Amino acid sequence: MKIKDKEPTDKSISLKPLTGSKKIYVQGKMHDIQVAMREISLTPTKLFSGKIEENHPVTVYDTSGPYTDPNVKIDLKKGLSRLREKWILKRGDVEQLKDFTSEYCAKRLADKSLDHLRFEHLKKPLKAKTGANVSQMHYAKKGIITPEMEYIAIRENQRIDLLKQQLDGKQEFLLQQHEGHSFGANTPKGYITPEFVRDEVAAGRAVIPANINHPESEPMIIGRNFLVKINTNIGNSAVSSSIEEEVEKAVWSCRWGGDTLMDLSTGKNIHETREWIIRNCPVPIGTVPIYQALEKVNGKAEDLTWEIFRDTLIEQAEQGVDYFTIHAGVLLRYIPLTAKRVTGIVSRGGSIMAKWCLSHHKESFIYTHFEEICEIMKAYDVAFSLGDGLRPGCIADANDAAQFAELETLGELTKIAWKHDIQTIIEGPGHVPMHMIKENMDKQLKECHEAPFYTLGPLTIDIAPGYDHITSAIGAAMIGWFGTAMLCYVTPKEHLGLPNKKDVKDGVITYKIAAHAADLAKGHPGAQYRDNALSKARFEFRWEDQFNLSLDPDTAREFHDETLPAEGAKVSHFCSMCGPHFCSMKITQDVRDYAATLETSEEEALQKGMKEKSQEFKEKGSEVYL
Amino acid sequence: MKIKDKEPTDKSISLKPLTGSKKIYVQGKMHDIQVAMREISLTPTKLFSGKIEENHPVTVYDTSGPYTDPNVKIDLKKGLSRLREKWILKRGDVEQLKDFTSEYCAKRLADKSLDHLRFEHLKKPLKAKTGANVSQMHYAKKGIITPEMEYIAIRENQRIDLLKQQLDGKQEFLLQQHEGHSFGANTPKGYITPEFVRDEVAAGRAVIPANINHPESEPMIIGRNFLVKINTNIGNSAVSSSIEEEVEKAVWSCRWGGDTLMDLSTGKNIHETREWIIRNCPVPIGTVPIYQALEKVNGKAEDLTWEIFRDTLIEQAEQGVDYFTIHAGVLLRYIPLTAKRVTGIVSRGGSIMAKWCLSHHKESFIYTHFEEICEIMKAYDVAFSLGDGLRPGCIADANDAAQFAELETLGELTKIAWKHDIQTIIEGPGHVPMHMIKENMDKQLKECHEAPFYTLGPLTIDIAPGYDHITSAIGAAMIGWFGTAMLCYVTPKEHLGLPNKKDVKDGVITYKIAAHAADLAKGHPGAQYRDNALSKARFEFRWEDQFNLSLDPDTAREFHDETLPAEGAKVSHFCSMCGPHFCSMKITQDVRDYAATLETSEEEALQKGMKEKSQEFKEKGSEVYL
Repeated sequence: MKIKDKEPTDKSISLKPLTGSKKIYVQGKMHDIQVAMREISLTPTKLFSGKIEENHPVTVYDTSGPYTDPNVKIDLKKGLSRLREKWILKRGDVEQLKDFTSEYCAKRLADKSLDHLRFEHLKKPLKAKTGANVSQMHYAKKGIITPEMEYIAIRENQRIDLLKQQLDGKQEFLLQQHEGHSFGANTPKGYITPEFVRDEVAAGRAVIPANINHPESEPMIIGRNFLVKINTNIGNSAVSSSIEEEVEKAVWSCRWGGDTLMDLSTGKNIHETREWIIRNCPVPIGTVPIYQALEKVNGKAEDLTWEIFRDTLIEQAEQGVDYFTIHAGVLLRYIPLTAKRVTGIVSRGGSIMAKWCLSHHKESFIYTHFEEICEIMKAYDVAFSLGDGLRPGCIADANDAAQFAELETLGELTKIAWKHDIQTIIEGPGHVPMHMIKENMDKQLKECHEAPFYTLGPLTIDIAPGYDHITSAIGAAMIGWFGTAMLCYVTPKEHLGLPNKKDVKDGVITYKIAAHAADLAKGHPGAQYRDNALSKARFEFRWEDQFNLSLDPDTAREFHDETLPAEGAKVSHFCSMCGPHFCSMKITQDVRDYAATLETSEEEALQKGMKEKSQEFKEKGSEVYL
Repeated sequence: MKIKDKEPTDKSISLKPLTGSKKIYVQGKMHDIQVAMREISLTPTKLFSGKIEENHPVTVYDTSGPYTDPNVKIDLKKGLSRLREKWILKRGDVEQLKDFTSEYCAKRLADKSLDHLRFEHLKKPLKAKTGANVSQMHYAKKGIITPEMEYIAIRENQRIDLLKQQLDGKQEFLLQQHEGHSFGANTPKGYITPEFVRDEVAAGRAVIPANINHPESEPMIIGRNFLVKINTNIGNSAVSSSIEEEVEKAVWSCRWGGDTLMDLSTGKNIHETREWIIRNCPVPIGTVPIYQALEKVNGKAEDLTWEIFRDTLIEQAEQGVDYFTIHAGVLLRYIPLTAKRVTGIVSRGGSIMAKWCLSHHKESFIYTHFEEICEIMKAYDVAFSLGDGLRPGCIADANDAAQFAELETLGELTKIAWKHDIQTIIEGPGHVPMHMIKENMDKQLKECHEAPFYTLGPLTIDIAPGYDHITSAIGAAMIGWFGTAMLCYVTPKEHLGLPNKKDVKDGVITYKIAAHAADLAKGHPGAQYRDNALSKARFEFRWEDQFNLSLDPDTAREFHDETLPAEGAKVSHFCSMCGPHFCSMKITQDVRDYAATLETSEEEALQKGMKEKSQEFKEKGSEVYL
């Protein structure tokens, strides 16, 4: 693969803010931190009386990083600025190594033939001082509120905590929200505080993926008492894709709302590809280290060894990977439980481990060396994502003995990880029909002691390849409501091919929908504010505001313009669905205005005697705006 | 609008069967009927031993009508063949009128300027003989099993009832299905019988929309103890679309799985457009008659009268509309309940009636003349779809007093309709967050005495215009599971513009997904068979079978070919996601084959002593197919 002339350039990356939006920074109180958010400004409402009513801007959670801040100069070759570096160094528990620890890494660095595709501004890795534990869970258990924790508290609130004051009696109805229906025990009813963040992390109910070697990442949290997060998978394979494409997909995924990013590359130059991605990625990065380890033994699972795997973990930890998917729950005795399945073992990591176990007839080196892995994790603050290697690959195999047996083992491993203060999340299915989803969530909470659940979908049917972002969004929204903390996106290409840039966006937006649906159902503080603001804009025919408040302003605008392209149409009080003389929203507005012209509410009007008023209305011409 | 040269032609319609499929007809036993279905033939499995294993074809429900039967000559100008005509005439309770009853219809027919866009082969309408009631509910209550009912029983079974015999011990595991979780009281555990169909219709729990003037329609049923159905909305508006486009969209919608079709035209030539659609439509047609009535008074709601509305109902009933959305539940006293809403009244029908009621200060003519409407309905067997004119238009307004007050009134009207043996379904919301969906279903069943529920979505969030097919599919799947009988599709253009052909397909496939997810969760007999067959094909890398078994074979194939276009790739034992040396399905197959080569199961192998076998496996080279 020759990419000398194909290194990522600024031109291949979308840098502009979303329309109607600007980047803002909210100052911390405990720490000197500036929390990035996106503010959507709104146009005023032109009341039918002719008066103008201002609409307060809406602040939303922003995963896009510095790319959408026009004041930041982006240079992909140098990578993003190292936001968290000084926080990390200030803690005084890390040291900078003289060189990379991993043998494989050293070999790659020494290989001149790779120079043309190497990230140039490599820094030497940080590592915990001997005996130190640099995990956020470790700090939390000691009662420390880190800058990361305060950042997260401010970020999660999206300034909802300030809104009541700011609205100052105007349009306060926008703050109305349905009572939630949370299945989490500790969902805060008010706002997120730094103390709450710390408590949740200490309890293991939430995770802050924050490798000390990925200081470019903006702090975020995965836990069921916070906003539901989504993960995006990208990565090359032996038959497809390049470094340039992967970096572009990473930035693109963040732009549209991806909260974390997994690099699942299984093709060539995995090490170098990952370096480019991490250095330019403002969200935490996850990987499945066994994929790369397998490449190192030329795809022969039975040739894998603990030493190769260990070296791979260290290689990736020193690059800055924030969480590792580790399939430590695939035990020898569980493998035969999959033999009668319709689709056997579909997890790649799961099948690699199964093959290794069968071939060597012993428990996997991942399981037997689990505590050694913990030692590595705590030296860099890499979080565990305990993989569900035996997840069902079709509806028929859902919730079976193999799946649930593994889940119990993941629960046992969680306890071991926590003993080392290693942050841990648990991966979940897969393919599950709707009525069997809740059982998964309940069992996970019980068996895994409330460690955050991180699910792929689940897909609720098998018969719609090409649309599995949708089949799975149904399951994802439901399991998110039931308590899943992070949803792993599925793209339209699932089962069929690797996602391109369009697929990545389709997957991200679809999963933002599922996550938001779950936030509303759980009653997450302030979750409904954006819906209310958009609905008000819709009702008032503030088309531009409706577009800008939506998850994907570009598509909303494009669809509108297909039937009514003229600029005038975007300020007109009707739309193409009904035409100018026939619009339900317009008629409702007439009804409401009618009440207003009488300087009384419709309700009072009715009580006072509708008949007279009705006559008056007719005499006035009934139609106010024709 | 000049469409002389734009009349629909066969060329504008997609006529070929879906790939891998052929039309089959299953003969009735009680009546001389031939029930159309789609049979998907499968390729054999090439076992790794070299043996060939046949795969039984899969029969699926088919809404596409004669268009996908290459043996039928399609002539849009003549319309489809009149399948049900002889059944209707044989009952001896109808008469052919000398002329159309509606004044408006007579006026249109006399207007020479419309000749160029008129459907040419108009037949005189049928009507019940004086005193007769020709509704399917009327027959059902009398204990009669009509040909329509037997057709439906056969159709719903999709030949699952025959499959166990046909499989004859081979691949019977494909019949496995998860225990359902039905919220319906009477879901059959076995197969659908004609008697069951009759009983459900007699009880009002199911509806067969079957206007005697739409004999082209293939019988189908809407009820929660049957397959969940989906409805497609099409129709022109004052600013967009033509007859040709609308007929094309209708056929297109049926091709992809639309069970019924609503023509919601509000633009020009509504009467003629509808005639073209009905004559060429193999599924029941619904309308909202008040839309056309409003056009007749130039869009001035307060000028509407009972006489104009009555004439419109008869005009449409004699054309063959199978169900009418009637917003009879918008009562004067409910209207003020909407004044404080974020988005007021968003139903077009609801706002028209609200405006009329306020303007005249009396209950609507639809409500006060409800029993007269029943007399019209029973003379043609038009079903009621009682409209939810006060449905919420945003999350904030969900499940409010206005919505639920109207629902109670719809329940009272249902009782009146049933007194006349008029088939009745109830329309539902709208915009509802996930945790408030079940309350809607439960309340509807209770207030409306188990009459079928027919919901629009519901949309579970407001912030994704451009993706509301997805925001609503989440709610639709859930409410379908809870007991909704028919889901009204939402397209990506919802809130933004009128759907084009691509949008119609996106909406239909998305709603087929929601409906099927609900069928699986309810445990509808045989619902899982297609999933199992597709999953088996997927696992065995029978790519063509996977495509053909999917809801949209064209898209699945196209997506696959984007990364691996070569023909060879469709028979290869890997895919672009992982590449040739790294595929979880392949590894699982190895694991399974390994057990098979030992002429024992993996489980037994493990029990006998895995170590020796493991050694043997390694010696054999571990990789069977590299």
